[in-house]
Amino acid sequence: MSIAPSVPHVIDRATCTALDAADPLAGHRDLFDLPEGVVYLDGNSLGALPRATAAHVQRVIAEEWGTGLIRSWNDAGWFTKPVDLGDRIAPLIGASAGEVVLGDSTSASLFQVAVAAARLRPERRVIVSERGNFPTDLYVLESVQELLGEPARPLERRLVDDEGPTLADVLGEDVTVVVLTHVNYRTGRMYDMAEVTRQVHAAGAIMVWDLCHSVGAVPVDLNGAGADFAIGCTYKYLNGGPGSPSFVWVAERHQAAARPAITGWHGHAKPFDFDVEYAPAPGVTRFRVGTPQLLSVAALEASLDIWRDVDMDLLREKSLRLTELFISLVDSRLAPWGVEVVTPRQSARRGSQVALRAGVADGYAVMQALIERGVIGDFRAPDLMRFGFTPLYVSHADVWDAVAVLEDILSTEVWREPRYARRGAVT
Amino acid sequence: MSIAPSVPHVIDRATCTALDAADPLAGHRDLFDLPEGVVYLDGNSLGALPRATAAHVQRVIAEEWGTGLIRSWNDAGWFTKPVDLGDRIAPLIGASAGEVVLGDSTSASLFQVAVAAARLRPERRVIVSERGNFPTDLYVLESVQELLGEPARPLERRLVDDEGPTLADVLGEDVTVVVLTHVNYRTGRMYDMAEVTRQVHAAGAIMVWDLCHSVGAVPVDLNGAGADFAIGCTYKYLNGGPGSPSFVWVAERHQAAARPAITGWHGHAKPFDFDVEYAPAPGVTRFRVGTPQLLSVAALEASLDIWRDVDMDLLREKSLRLTELFISLVDSRLAPWGVEVVTPRQSARRGSQVALRAGVADGYAVMQALIERGVIGDFRAPDLMRFGFTPLYVSHADVWDAVAVLEDILSTEVWREPRYARRGAVT
Repeated sequence: MSIAPSVPHVIDRATCTALDAADPLAGHRDLFDLPEGVVYLDGNSLGALPRATAAHVQRVIAEEWGTGLIRSWNDAGWFTKPVDLGDRIAPLIGASAGEVVLGDSTSASLFQVAVAAARLRPERRVIVSERGNFPTDLYVLESVQELLGEPARPLERRLVDDEGPTLADVLGEDVTVVVLTHVNYRTGRMYDMAEVTRQVHAAGAIMVWDLCHSVGAVPVDLNGAGADFAIGCTYKYLNGGPGSPSFVWVAERHQAAARPAITGWHGHAKPFDFDVEYAPAPGVTRFRVGTPQLLSVAALEASLDIWRDVDMDLLREKSLRLTELFISLVDSRLAPWGVEVVTPRQSARRGSQVALRAGVADGYAVMQALIERGVIGDFRAPDLMRFGFTPLYVSHADVWDAVAVLEDILSTEVWREPRYARRGAVT
Repeated sequence: MSIAPSVPHVIDRATCTALDAADPLAGHRDLFDLPEGVVYLDGNSLGALPRATAAHVQRVIAEEWGTGLIRSWNDAGWFTKPVDLGDRIAPLIGASAGEVVLGDSTSASLFQVAVAAARLRPERRVIVSERGNFPTDLYVLESVQELLGEPARPLERRLVDDEGPTLADVLGEDVTVVVLTHVNYRTGRMYDMAEVTRQVHAAGAIMVWDLCHSVGAVPVDLNGAGADFAIGCTYKYLNGGPGSPSFVWVAERHQAAARPAITGWHGHAKPFDFDVEYAPAPGVTRFRVGTPQLLSVAALEASLDIWRDVDMDLLREKSLRLTELFISLVDSRLAPWGVEVVTPRQSARRGSQVALRAGVADGYAVMQALIERGVIGDFRAPDLMRFGFTPLYVSHADVWDAVAVLEDILSTEVWREPRYARRGAVT
């Protein structure tokens, strides 16, 4: 992993446009349809629309569905799409061909994988996760507890955090699976995947990584880290579209023994033999469940074309330059209002997003005022403003403009206007 | 349920076009983009493309995703789509508003529901289904067995069929859940939903209906039948597009007690509070799992517009007229080749599809020859040719033409040509 070049000490907007001019990824912005006048810093929640997507989906609708009809299951390769697109995601996460397959939602995929993982250590009765994990991961682990637990042998869910108990505190001979999200959804803190995996393996447990905020954001090397299972989402940094399908990764060495939670016909060894008994397909294919939602799959397919040419080290360099620039500008310009950077300043511990506490202001109201002025981030209860920096389409000038608008909102106190007051929440 | 008017005894193509001229649903064909020269009799596998779908999906991509970006979760109502569209499916299946919600695939939804159902009778240890059920239902029940079973209290899966043991044979105090598909995917045989539900309830068990081949094909009255749970698919007779989302129905009386298999954040009572503990949402919403695949949802939304105006009794009348016409023509014209109608001739026991055995010919090869000549049905191993009759866009002349082509293929023995020989399978 390369180190980002330092941001110059005296920064003005001209510095930012100069950085853009020198940015080898700057041209990728033209691959996206971003609305005029918007600084989009929420690609960590929903990625922007690639220019090629609409036409591709339209072709799938008109030609593959409308004209090909049922024949497209074979002729257009519909049946193997989840495997084919899995193979295209593989290089982005340090996986091999045949190790990745599309799922439904990340929640469903985590369930599918966590059950399989826990079954590899049936004698152990503790599942570990992190209190600050994205909540659905914790909810799904409740399902796993309920379904794999028995009255005589209950399964326990133990949550760790920095205040303790920590991961080191709870790891022991009773731990079956550890489920952690590589880059935290709120703080942007990134785990050392190899080191944590080593620690979990030293305790004899299975490591499941949630890559929702990593894939397409930072280089990931699952096989290099020796991890066991992973799941992730494609609608954030991969720009697959709203609710585009999740993916599942199963290390090759576990594939033969792994029994997925839900044994569906698309995971069957011979789905068109219509046998009465389930027989798992070889490899990761057995983690498929039912018929894939092919229009959402089509949008993902178009978005993956962009990734053929992306150098992940360049991507990471730019990501760190953007977040470092943002942190630096926040420090230098927003101190008067007590704005606090929550995300780690150490670059190796940071994903591609930065979270702020709004200090004297109400972060929710500040975010609404930002969005109204075209700077789109989001708010996560109870008090975090999140800003995602998608290196493919966010520019250094965007970072400058976002902080300038933020400063204006704080200095004018426009955020106090009643129309910005909390009423709902943005996903 | 109304009785179909008899098909005239002496049928020729003019009779069929006259029936089309008198058909009150004939105009609905114009709502679909069917390719020229195709007789599409596979809407029971993948429904045809509604004319309005492409533009609607395009608008969702360009405006809601491209321009609205993350704001569309609130502004475009993305978050509640699975509930809103559930409410629009409800009238088609005799359900009330608030009883239906979209899922991922039907396999995933059956798992979600079958676990909940079995938990309502935890002391009982037998799950019942039908040997001839669509295989994924049987595979999913293996998952339920594995996950709800315990070494000391295993769960048994018992399969019934007409040869025995029959449903009546196995129903007893040990049966927790019965899972049956209302209209059989191969034979088109339809159960008497009210009668079977009554029988299952008399044994104290829970009734789960799979409506994949019923919804949009025949009138369904879940509440009238007093059923407990149901799932179904939207890409067949509802024309939602390839892999469009499944749906889940939970009778209002069970909603408070039902605990879904997978407890995901979209089923949480307060998903944006980001609590560490799962708390089920009120009502059927708790059966939601993760982020819905919104482009596939959008296509479904467009297809549901068509159903606002459809009179289900008229639909059933036409469906029976089409299948009766097909059966009658097969009987009168294809007897020389030993072609056999597998689907029940009694209209009350028939869905909207007809299955044939090809007699002296190889059904697989015959179907390939049919498809090559623009008559699209499908083949189901080991020996069935399936023909689906979607009343919204199949005409009586289509039925005539299909049988005429079939007769030609059999009489010329063109099906014996090597290019039609079995190599793969069509979904």
